Amino acid sequence: MTYCLAVSLNKGLVFASDSRTNAGVDYVATYSKMSRFVFENNRTLVLLTSGSLATSQAVLNAIDKDLKDPDAEFDISQGDYLHEVAQYIGQLSQEEQKRHADAMDKSKSNNESSFILGGQIAGQKSQIFLIYPQGNFISASAETPFLQIGENKYGKPILDRFITPTTSLEDAARCAIVSLDSTIRSNISVGPPIELAILRENEICEPYHNVMGPNNAMYKSVLKQWNEGLSNAIKRLPRFEWEKSG
Amino acid sequence: MTYCLAVSLNKGLVFASDSRTNAGVDYVATYSKMSRFVFENNRTLVLLTSGSLATSQAVLNAIDKDLKDPDAEFDISQGDYLHEVAQYIGQLSQEEQKRHADAMDKSKSNNESSFILGGQIAGQKSQIFLIYPQGNFISASAETPFLQIGENKYGKPILDRFITPTTSLEDAARCAIVSLDSTIRSNISVGPPIELAILRENEICEPYHNVMGPNNAMYKSVLKQWNEGLSNAIKRLPRFEWEKSG
Repeated sequence: MTYCLAVSLNKGLVFASDSRTNAGVDYVATYSKMSRFVFENNRTLVLLTSGSLATSQAVLNAIDKDLKDPDAEFDISQGDYLHEVAQYIGQLSQEEQKRHADAMDKSKSNNESSFILGGQIAGQKSQIFLIYPQGNFISASAETPFLQIGENKYGKPILDRFITPTTSLEDAARCAIVSLDSTIRSNISVGPPIELAILRENEICEPYHNVMGPNNAMYKSVLKQWNEGLSNAIKRLPRFEWEKSG
Repeated sequence: MTYCLAVSLNKGLVFASDSRTNAGVDYVATYSKMSRFVFENNRTLVLLTSGSLATSQAVLNAIDKDLKDPDAEFDISQGDYLHEVAQYIGQLSQEEQKRHADAMDKSKSNNESSFILGGQIAGQKSQIFLIYPQGNFISASAETPFLQIGENKYGKPILDRFITPTTSLEDAARCAIVSLDSTIRSNISVGPPIELAILRENEICEPYHNVMGPNNAMYKSVLKQWNEGLSNAIKRLPRFEWEKSG
């Protein structure tokens, strides 16, 4: 399994992903699920992947191939709008899934993948899209400023409580780390390192990027402070009647 | 959907349940999912239900019928061990499901129910069991001191972090309210009021029981304090390098 999320804020975008993949419980491995693409002065893109690792890798290979092929019909550096890039990635995903559809049916397997595409094209507002395995996609909105793929339930409450479009990039990044960590603690199919990327609005350049393993100073510090903060929050909850008189 | 949980502690048991049921999104209703049974000086039992409301109600009706029938082979006031009561409830659930199996198959519907049974038989340690739709069941352990049924993921991180067998009944009850509330906020199929029951170890009598709607003073106070506590915890998380110098 996987857990990735992206947050769309007035001041830019935040992305976070775990790094665990597994085919059954006896083949567990570590792979990055976050790809960054910078086309200077034109666009910065981040792509998060979840689902079949084979499909996700095939889509990334196809993106790369088209970028290098001057005769390609389309590539991620093209398109006036980010939704055109989302459309293209959905199409690559569908093509790859269809290529193996018969074999998948025969083995009763599934090679679906979901993607989150986010970024900014110069002169436009930054955006994030969730691309479904069927190739169609949705964007975030002011009311729903974050999108998740994979094992999304454990880490959703903290986002529901605190993320609004006016949240700062740094606060959203801290919430994202906590959201990932809560999921890692509750579900063994999601694991470190946590990858974090921050795109500042109107800065079309290499985004901030950090890979935080269990020994990363920032990650360790967030975990320690969060545990202490939650303990304090629990301790400060109101007493039952009989505790007050006791 | 539903979310119910039970916690097994050295000092007793804590139970919590939501009250929303729905058949599709256009038939949403409020039902208690917590039943309490006290047989003085003999045993106290609490039963939480999740899944098909028809199956859950049929099992409760059968429990009641057997209790009133002097010729019944078994009822929940009998059995030397709590696992015998769990076995009996699993059997009632299976009988009810089988009664409608053909019709369910035809309409491609599902009438499965899951249960949590907890309580104490005088002279024995208190216990909790999760009874699967198939009628088999598991108990909690020192390493896994809580059991959940229904929409269990949103509210699991807080339990994973704080619940151990030495947690006080009151702290566990506060964690349970927070766990329920996080789920209610993130999933519309889970809703108030929250029912809470506390059984103190070796007190075979009517348990503490509270039905907390949105206007309940304790519930409102927990929500307010928890939101403030979480906000403080977020605020106290470590800064990124550029924030320190800024």
